[in-house]
Amino acid sequence: MQRGFAQSEFEQRMARAQSRMQAAGIDALFLTTEADMRYFTGFLTRFWESPSRPWFLVVPQSGKPIAVIPSIGAALMAQTWIDDIRTWRAPNPQDDGVSLLAETLNEIGAEVIATPMGYESHLRMPLADWTRVQTAAGGRIRDDAGIMAGLRAIKSEAEIAKIEQACAIAGRAFARVPQIAAEGIPLAQVFRDFQRLCLEEGADWVPYLAGACASGGYSDVISPASDAPLATDDVLMLDTGLVWEGYFSDFDRNFSIGPATPTTQAAHAKLIDAVDAGARIATIGSTAADVFHAMDAIVTGGAGGSDAGRLGHGLGMQLTEGLSLIPSDHTVLEVGMVITLEPGIDVGNGRILVHEEDIVITEGAPRFLSPRAGREMITI
Amino acid sequence: MQRGFAQSEFEQRMARAQSRMQAAGIDALFLTTEADMRYFTGFLTRFWESPSRPWFLVVPQSGKPIAVIPSIGAALMAQTWIDDIRTWRAPNPQDDGVSLLAETLNEIGAEVIATPMGYESHLRMPLADWTRVQTAAGGRIRDDAGIMAGLRAIKSEAEIAKIEQACAIAGRAFARVPQIAAEGIPLAQVFRDFQRLCLEEGADWVPYLAGACASGGYSDVISPASDAPLATDDVLMLDTGLVWEGYFSDFDRNFSIGPATPTTQAAHAKLIDAVDAGARIATIGSTAADVFHAMDAIVTGGAGGSDAGRLGHGLGMQLTEGLSLIPSDHTVLEVGMVITLEPGIDVGNGRILVHEEDIVITEGAPRFLSPRAGREMITI
Repeated sequence: MQRGFAQSEFEQRMARAQSRMQAAGIDALFLTTEADMRYFTGFLTRFWESPSRPWFLVVPQSGKPIAVIPSIGAALMAQTWIDDIRTWRAPNPQDDGVSLLAETLNEIGAEVIATPMGYESHLRMPLADWTRVQTAAGGRIRDDAGIMAGLRAIKSEAEIAKIEQACAIAGRAFARVPQIAAEGIPLAQVFRDFQRLCLEEGADWVPYLAGACASGGYSDVISPASDAPLATDDVLMLDTGLVWEGYFSDFDRNFSIGPATPTTQAAHAKLIDAVDAGARIATIGSTAADVFHAMDAIVTGGAGGSDAGRLGHGLGMQLTEGLSLIPSDHTVLEVGMVITLEPGIDVGNGRILVHEEDIVITEGAPRFLSPRAGREMITI
Repeated sequence: MQRGFAQSEFEQRMARAQSRMQAAGIDALFLTTEADMRYFTGFLTRFWESPSRPWFLVVPQSGKPIAVIPSIGAALMAQTWIDDIRTWRAPNPQDDGVSLLAETLNEIGAEVIATPMGYESHLRMPLADWTRVQTAAGGRIRDDAGIMAGLRAIKSEAEIAKIEQACAIAGRAFARVPQIAAEGIPLAQVFRDFQRLCLEEGADWVPYLAGACASGGYSDVISPASDAPLATDDVLMLDTGLVWEGYFSDFDRNFSIGPATPTTQAAHAKLIDAVDAGARIATIGSTAADVFHAMDAIVTGGAGGSDAGRLGHGLGMQLTEGLSLIPSDHTVLEVGMVITLEPGIDVGNGRILVHEEDIVITEGAPRFLSPRAGREMITI
């Protein structure tokens, strides 16, 4: 599969953005996060792991984006389609790009500048510097009215292909779990080996792995692995977000160590039924809440959710992004949205089971991007 | 090696924090980032990869911290030493913890609340919610005057042991690079295999890998790997930040594909000499700038640096944190600081070589945490 994107992909993203900016009366977008910046530039690096240096992108209402970045990134940014690259020698705690950014904002003469300030957004720069930028910009920077989130929620065919590739890689890794998991093996060892399998199957890297292993179900899905060995009657759950070409897969699988009890087996089957119910209603015009209720009816009998907080979410350049499958999210599904269906079920004694698949919304029925699990839990 | 920390470790961190808060007239710290929150709680999870939910910690001037977090994190937080755990069912785009946080801040009756706003800090919550929190708190939240950065810069013996363990794992992985790299192998394959080696040698995960491979040197150290095959005369550089128990190693190694030319060999030897010079001066009372100048004298003849921006940095719960080895950073070195020495050298034609080691400042000469490389570049 081809790496990168054709330049036309970025031109189309810009055209959509600039049309929305015009409608909202926004002269320029000001962006600071990895995903927002990469969306318009294609700038892909793991260097964001270092929080020391801020990176800025200015997207005017006409013309191409302007990158205002640390000089260490100039060579890589020059390989993208961006022409206007302004750099400073960072880190510079006295003036870490603030003056250069202020100059740029003033130069483009934007009256109304906007940055994401709403749900799930972060400002990736120090607050003190943000205040200086706002002052330099005459306090003109306001909320982007959800433009970035709205743009990124609808994936192009090229983006969907990358997510599907990530899902295929994860699917092959999950299929090999019986090679690495067995009674007596410490969970931490399974975690290390599973990440190795993801890499062997083609992942560029594995930013996320969570999981659990306990008798008949687990109490928590975000803990790091302990050194406790797998035991008979345990359910082993592995939930990975691996990346291919900057796009995530995000789904899990449950495995029974030794034959599953009828109770566990029935709970697992219900999760698959819930995914089916969610997928049936996940069509154009349905809302995130509709998909939630379809699944919640099966896993809780319609109780309205659990402490996990949601039964799925958007997926793309981030492990989670955009809509949530919760009762209060009335986002209407559109073609090109990629979401996870992630029902959880209470199996008693404070234990739960969680299952997750990835789908893309189409003109008709949604298409599964993850290779679907069967109703019967896999036994190891 | 033991996982986690003794409770006394957190009590000592709190005592140091509260003493500094008292001196600065700060009644409570308000924290939002993974590292700051983990510093006081021990809350360790890869779930932070999901940006959807905010997490809050309130550290009063006396007593234990209060966690204000999504309910999905309650079970894991309950395993830490924290008693006061307040949760809401997140995500809730209408009120994502803001009311619960505001109640908590008002309940503790803090007059002066502070959060990191300076160099390298981020606020990990939406700006719109931040404004609501500030309003609810009567605008009382101000900058923490560098307290968090100052606390985290000095590592305890237990923290240093974890970083040293991460470095040992990376060292073993680097020693095995000749098993995975050879003429004709695509760089992307080397990247995947090197991450696998890190996991096999004991890494919990591998958040960071950068590198490059080109004839006689490379032009960039932050790019992702291409599928271009390694060729004779190439220098292969791999720079990894792997994690053990939530603490990073961060160093690189250079390998020559086929015998290195005398020019390349000499440049590599100079880098090692620069590390030696940096280490000689990296003692109590020296400044970050002193260490910079000692290395810069060797790699540029004292030109004052390069576009990479710095010749090393602090290291710990983040891949990079705290001080920078640059001319304008006059931070005085203290016992327990862990830093990287990362000189780069121009080898002509727009190419560079970069070498990196990790050290801890002690009462005497610094101790190397990474297994030191020799002056001669390893040939594959």
